[in-house]
Amino acid sequence: MIGIFDSGIGGLTVAKAIKKVLPSYDLVYFGDTARVPYGNKSDDLIKQYALEDAKFLISKGAKIIIVACNTASSVALDYLRSNFDIPIFGVIEPAVRGALEATVNGNIGVIGTRATINSKVFEKLLKNFDLLKQNKKIDKNVNVPAFMRKQGISPVKDKMKINIFSQSAPLLVPLTEEGHLNRPETIKIIKYYISPLKMKQIDTLILGCTHYPLLKDLIQTKMKNTTLIDSAVYIAEDLRKYLSANIDIDRSLSKRKCENYYVSDLTLHTQNIVQKFLGKKINLEYVKLN
Amino acid sequence: MIGIFDSGIGGLTVAKAIKKVLPSYDLVYFGDTARVPYGNKSDDLIKQYALEDAKFLISKGAKIIIVACNTASSVALDYLRSNFDIPIFGVIEPAVRGALEATVNGNIGVIGTRATINSKVFEKLLKNFDLLKQNKKIDKNVNVPAFMRKQGISPVKDKMKINIFSQSAPLLVPLTEEGHLNRPETIKIIKYYISPLKMKQIDTLILGCTHYPLLKDLIQTKMKNTTLIDSAVYIAEDLRKYLSANIDIDRSLSKRKCENYYVSDLTLHTQNIVQKFLGKKINLEYVKLN
Repeated sequence: MIGIFDSGIGGLTVAKAIKKVLPSYDLVYFGDTARVPYGNKSDDLIKQYALEDAKFLISKGAKIIIVACNTASSVALDYLRSNFDIPIFGVIEPAVRGALEATVNGNIGVIGTRATINSKVFEKLLKNFDLLKQNKKIDKNVNVPAFMRKQGISPVKDKMKINIFSQSAPLLVPLTEEGHLNRPETIKIIKYYISPLKMKQIDTLILGCTHYPLLKDLIQTKMKNTTLIDSAVYIAEDLRKYLSANIDIDRSLSKRKCENYYVSDLTLHTQNIVQKFLGKKINLEYVKLN
Repeated sequence: MIGIFDSGIGGLTVAKAIKKVLPSYDLVYFGDTARVPYGNKSDDLIKQYALEDAKFLISKGAKIIIVACNTASSVALDYLRSNFDIPIFGVIEPAVRGALEATVNGNIGVIGTRATINSKVFEKLLKNFDLLKQNKKIDKNVNVPAFMRKQGISPVKDKMKINIFSQSAPLLVPLTEEGHLNRPETIKIIKYYISPLKMKQIDTLILGCTHYPLLKDLIQTKMKNTTLIDSAVYIAEDLRKYLSANIDIDRSLSKRKCENYYVSDLTLHTQNIVQKFLGKKINLEYVKLN
């Protein structure tokens, strides 16, 4: 059983992508809507919340955990890995892989919440990637994903100088949740956030928050020649690869037996956003975390 | 000792107003920054959080509690009053009194969070006010403040037909917290929220969230002939009246001995917003609530 958690319901886009590529696995989702958002909170608090979220998923039978929340992936991934023995995947490493594969000029931009950007996790990962390529000692405090360690990206990319430019874009979360998806004020705020990145001539932009893919079309119209990276696609692919390499049983013929979605607070508004996010209704179950 | 709580640090504007009119009272403030915002959460969860907030203030010695958060005042005030024996004041009733005093044409608007507006607390209070004036039976589930019961507002107002028009304005909270106070997108979003209220020809607008007074000047330029009601002013006045009527000791000569500000999560960003809110730095202490 695959467990997925997020600070709220944005991570359902990740669940959707995983469902698509792994139709035979059971799935349990937890959205911490009682304490959403995480993006402006302190690192210590985000770690505490992430630990509680993961514990809940494990109590429901999860044998592998996906941290769908970019903020928790940035701040709490190593902390979670040191607390549990099961495999734990974040959404940052897959997004970096996607961006490295996509970039042509080596200038990668990233937008995320304040906590995600402040963590400098993207910069640290790429710094290690650089050091690895030069056969130098890496920063051992920063986890180095297998795709960097084992095979690199490609002979061309492994020699390319990569620059990363990051920008926190906190207002895009409430704008998305309020359904202001195609309004003039949203365009103005997007311009405000991306213009410093455009000045850096980025050709690839990581959408470093589960909410941002809903604004993908709008962002694309403002950044015509930029490849937008939605980590949901890459994490689903990484997970599929991991499972086919590590799990003995052939599940290709079996069917998903259960699929549960829990939230720590449930309002009509939450249900409406979910419908907007997924294009359909799903059954959300309320659960009291503490 | 006066205890004041809010979902975050917006309630510091209320604390500031109270400090000004009551210079001799001790003060303890709690901002639940670990779980902010309350405005989109469910009624049950808001009640639970408000109860925990009030318990914390009482544990610190508070003998009277001010619910500075409009959302908690709307949803959880009666619940808190039924759980504690000490006097508990919310910010809704003072705002309604302020609006009734100010209106000339009887059309009052109110903006607030989704939970505040959905609670229909403003409509219910005014409905009872109407029933009282007509000597009819009131809805006993809705608390009727003393100012309505005892003396009314004025002979003219007590005969006036009052209409209330409400509008949830959730995006104004993150815009304020991000410091987008005087930007074109903020003007657009304000217009979006207030235009339905302008159509109703309101002459008075209640700023039903502690964050909104920071946008007062901007809102005023878009609603030139409308009186804006900031509940902080009225709650401070109500509290002063209550204390002078109910407390025996003459405190007029004594000085405030202590003044503490607690938050359940502390980041640099929070400290920066506080400075923006109050125009000066204050010492915030971190406290773990559970």
